[in-house]
Amino acid sequence: MQDDQQLDDERAIRQLIEAWLGASASGENKKVLELMTDDVVFLRPGNPPMRGKSAFAAAQSAQGGMHVDARSDIQEISVFGEFACCWNKLTVDITPEGDAKPIRRSGDVLSIFRKEAGVWRLFRDANLLTVTRD
Amino acid sequence: MQDDQQLDDERAIRQLIEAWLGASASGENKKVLELMTDDVVFLRPGNPPMRGKSAFAAAQSAQGGMHVDARSDIQEISVFGEFACCWNKLTVDITPEGDAKPIRRSGDVLSIFRKEAGVWRLFRDANLLTVTRD
Repeated sequence: MQDDQQLDDERAIRQLIEAWLGASASGENKKVLELMTDDVVFLRPGNPPMRGKSAFAAAQSAQGGMHVDARSDIQEISVFGEFACCWNKLTVDITPEGDAKPIRRSGDVLSIFRKEAGVWRLFRDANLLTVTRD
Repeated sequence: MQDDQQLDDERAIRQLIEAWLGASASGENKKVLELMTDDVVFLRPGNPPMRGKSAFAAAQSAQGGMHVDARSDIQEISVFGEFACCWNKLTVDITPEGDAKPIRRSGDVLSIFRKEAGVWRLFRDANLLTVTRD
C-alpha cells in the first residue's frame, strides 16, 4: 500500500536523479553538489571510498572539460520515512576534452537518500559500473 | 540521539552479519538462506543482478566444496524504523576445492536490511569487492 506521501517522495527522488544527470551533462557542478548531503560517501570497486561533498567537488574540478552523458533506468525506489533506497541502471558515456571517442561505462547503482529539512539528498552511493565499450 | 530500540536493531544487524560469515565459512548453506528476504537482490560489478533467494541457493550449490573465509570491518549502520543500511568492508579468501591457494577479494559492501515480523534480513546488497591477491 502506497500513500500520497510515499508517491510524492518517490517522485522527488526521480526528479533528483534527473536533475543530477542533467546538471552533470551540462557541466553545472555546483547544482550537482546541492543534491548530496555534506557527509555523502561514494563507494567504487577497486578504489577507496570518496567521503564528503568536498572530495566530490575536488574530483569534479580534476575532470575539467570532460563531457558526461548519462541515461538512467530506475529499477525500484523504496521509501521508508526520511530514508530511501534506489536501485538504478546507468549507462554513462564519458568524452575526455579534445577527444571524440567516448568511453562507455554501464551497470547497477545502489543509492541511499536522506530527507533533510524536507529536501531529499544523496547520502550513500555504491557505483558498480564497468567499462562496456572503449 | 539513539534510543534503545535503535541500539537493539544495530546489535541485531551486527549479529546477522556475524551469523552470515560464520555459516558461510562452515558451509551451512541453509542457515545463510534464512538471513535474506525471499526477494533479495545482489548487485555485482560486471555481472547481471542475482535476483531472489532461489538464485542465491543455486549459486551456493554450484560452488560445491569451495571454502570461504571472510572478515568484516563494519563502517556504519544506519537504522530507520524497519529499514537499515550498512556500509561494510569485507576481505574474503576463497579456496576452490582441492586447491591450496586461496583467492583474496576485498572492498566495500553497501547493504540494505529489512525487518520482517521482527526479524532483520538482507534485502539489497551491492558488492564492490575486487581481487586483491591471487
